[in-house]
Amino acid sequence: MTSDFSPLKAAIERALALHLDQQSTLAPSLLDAMRYALLGGGKRLRPLFTLVTAESLGAQIDAAMPAACAIEMIHSYSLVHDDLPAMDNDDLRHGKPSTHKAFGEWTAILAGDALLTLAFETLGDLTAVTPDVRMQCVQVLARASGWRGMVGGQTRDMQLSNHNVAITDIEDLKALHAAKTGALIRISVELGARVAGATEADVAKLNRFADSIGLAFQIMDDVLDVTASTETLGKPAGSDVRENKQTFVTFLGVDGARREALAVLESADAALDGVLTDASRLLALGRMAVIRSF
Amino acid sequence: MTSDFSPLKAAIERALALHLDQQSTLAPSLLDAMRYALLGGGKRLRPLFTLVTAESLGAQIDAAMPAACAIEMIHSYSLVHDDLPAMDNDDLRHGKPSTHKAFGEWTAILAGDALLTLAFETLGDLTAVTPDVRMQCVQVLARASGWRGMVGGQTRDMQLSNHNVAITDIEDLKALHAAKTGALIRISVELGARVAGATEADVAKLNRFADSIGLAFQIMDDVLDVTASTETLGKPAGSDVRENKQTFVTFLGVDGARREALAVLESADAALDGVLTDASRLLALGRMAVIRSF
Repeated sequence: MTSDFSPLKAAIERALALHLDQQSTLAPSLLDAMRYALLGGGKRLRPLFTLVTAESLGAQIDAAMPAACAIEMIHSYSLVHDDLPAMDNDDLRHGKPSTHKAFGEWTAILAGDALLTLAFETLGDLTAVTPDVRMQCVQVLARASGWRGMVGGQTRDMQLSNHNVAITDIEDLKALHAAKTGALIRISVELGARVAGATEADVAKLNRFADSIGLAFQIMDDVLDVTASTETLGKPAGSDVRENKQTFVTFLGVDGARREALAVLESADAALDGVLTDASRLLALGRMAVIRSF
Repeated sequence: MTSDFSPLKAAIERALALHLDQQSTLAPSLLDAMRYALLGGGKRLRPLFTLVTAESLGAQIDAAMPAACAIEMIHSYSLVHDDLPAMDNDDLRHGKPSTHKAFGEWTAILAGDALLTLAFETLGDLTAVTPDVRMQCVQVLARASGWRGMVGGQTRDMQLSNHNVAITDIEDLKALHAAKTGALIRISVELGARVAGATEADVAKLNRFADSIGLAFQIMDDVLDVTASTETLGKPAGSDVRENKQTFVTFLGVDGARREALAVLESADAALDGVLTDASRLLALGRMAVIRSF
C-alpha cells in the first residue's frame, strides 16, 4: 500500500470544513474563530490514525470520518486553550497568530469550548455503526480527553512549567505525557478500530501500538524543541530551555532522547504483530508521526 | 404532589459528588477545583427540571439522574469560564470566591474543560434507556450547549457587555437569552422527557413550556440585578448598571420587566395543557425558578 497520506489528509480537511460550513446570526465571530482554529493547518495526525486504522481493518473511510473529525476538534480546542495567556501564553500556532492573538482572549476561550462540544455532537454522525458502538465512542473519547487523560496531563504539565512540581523519575514524565498527548493518540487508533468492529483483543494490541507511538512522538517533540527552528515547527522553538522545563532531553540528552524515540518506535511496530493482514500503512503513518517527515 | 424540592436537590448533590469521588495521582488539584465548582452550591434548577419532568411522565428518578448530572456539569463549567478575568471577571459565585480566585486562572480553565467533558461521559450512564435514546441525549445536549446555543449566546452577551454590538429591538435580546440561558433550561426538560419515553408531540409542548420558563427566568434575573443584594444573589448585584449593559430592564423598566416575567410564566403554564396527568409539581418548579423562592 502507498504511504502517501495527502489524499486522506485532504479528505479530512474537507470533512472538517463541512462541519463548520454554517451560518450564525447570533455569533458569526465565534464561528470565524472556530474555523480559524480548526481549519488553519496542522498535520491531522490523529484523524489520520483513525482512518488508517479503520481502513487497515477493512472498514470504509467514510464510516470512520465522523470519529476522525471529532478527535481533531478535541485536539484543536486543546491547542486554543493551551495557547492562552493564562496557560502557555504562545502567540504562534501553525505558523500564524494563535487564536487568542487573532480573535481576542474571550473569543478564544469560547471557541475552544464550542469545538470541544461540537466533537461530541459530531460522534452522532457515526451512523455506519450501531448506536451502542456510537455511545461507546462517546465514552472512550470523553475519558481520554478529560480529567483522567488529556486535561489531567495538561494540568500536571502546567505545574511542571510553573515549577510547582519537580519530576525526579523519568517514569513520572512518561505518565504525564501518556495522559497529555498519549491518551488522544491512543483513542485515535481505538475509535478507528471500534468503527471497524475489531475484537477487544485486537483493540488491546492496537492500543499498545498507539501508546508506544504516543510516547515516541513526545520524546521526539522534546528533541525538536531543542534542534528545530521556529519556522519548521510553526510554533516557538526552544521554549522548554527558556522555561527551564524538565523534558525527556533533560533526562536523556539530545542524542539519548532521539535513540530512545527510535527504540520505542520499534516496539510500536512489534505490538502490531498478527493484528492486521497488511500493517504497512499504519506502520508508515506511525513512523512519519514520530520522525515528522511530513 | 408536594412542591418541596429539597429531597430531590439533596439526591442530585449526592449523585454529583459520586461522579467526583475519585482519586488522581496525576492532577489532584484539578479534581479539587472541579469539586469546588460543581459541589459548592447553586439552586440545582436545571437538574431539578430534568428529574421533575421525568417523574411527572412516570419515569424513575434514578433513570434520569445521569442526564440531570450531565446538565449541571455543563452549567457549572459555563459559570467557571464566564467568571474568568478575560470574560465577566466576577470574583464571587454562590457567595464564595469564584473558581479562578480560589484555584488560579489556568486551573479554572482546565477544570471547566474537564467538567464539560465529564458531562458527555456521564450520559453513558443512562443505562435505563436504549443506546439510541442515550445517543440522542448526547446530540441534543451538545447542540444546546454549543455554538448554536449556550456558547453562541454567551459570545453575543460578551459583545453586548463590551459594547461591540448594540441591541435596538427587544426581540434580539430575547434571541440572545434564548441561546445563552434558554437552551440549557429547554434541554433540561427535554432530556427528562426523552428518558421517560415521551412522544415527539409531548416533547414539543414541554419545550414550549421550558422556553417560556427560560425567558421569564432571564427577565427576572435582570430585575433582581437591580433590586436584590449581593448577599441574596451570591454574586455581585448591580453589575448590569455598572457596565451600562442593555437588559430587559433597559427596555421595560423594573416594574414592566417584572410584569412581563409573570405574564411569560403564565404562558408557560398554558403550554403544559394536556401533556401531563398531574402537572402540579412541574408548574411549581417553574414558578419557583422564576420567582426565586428557594
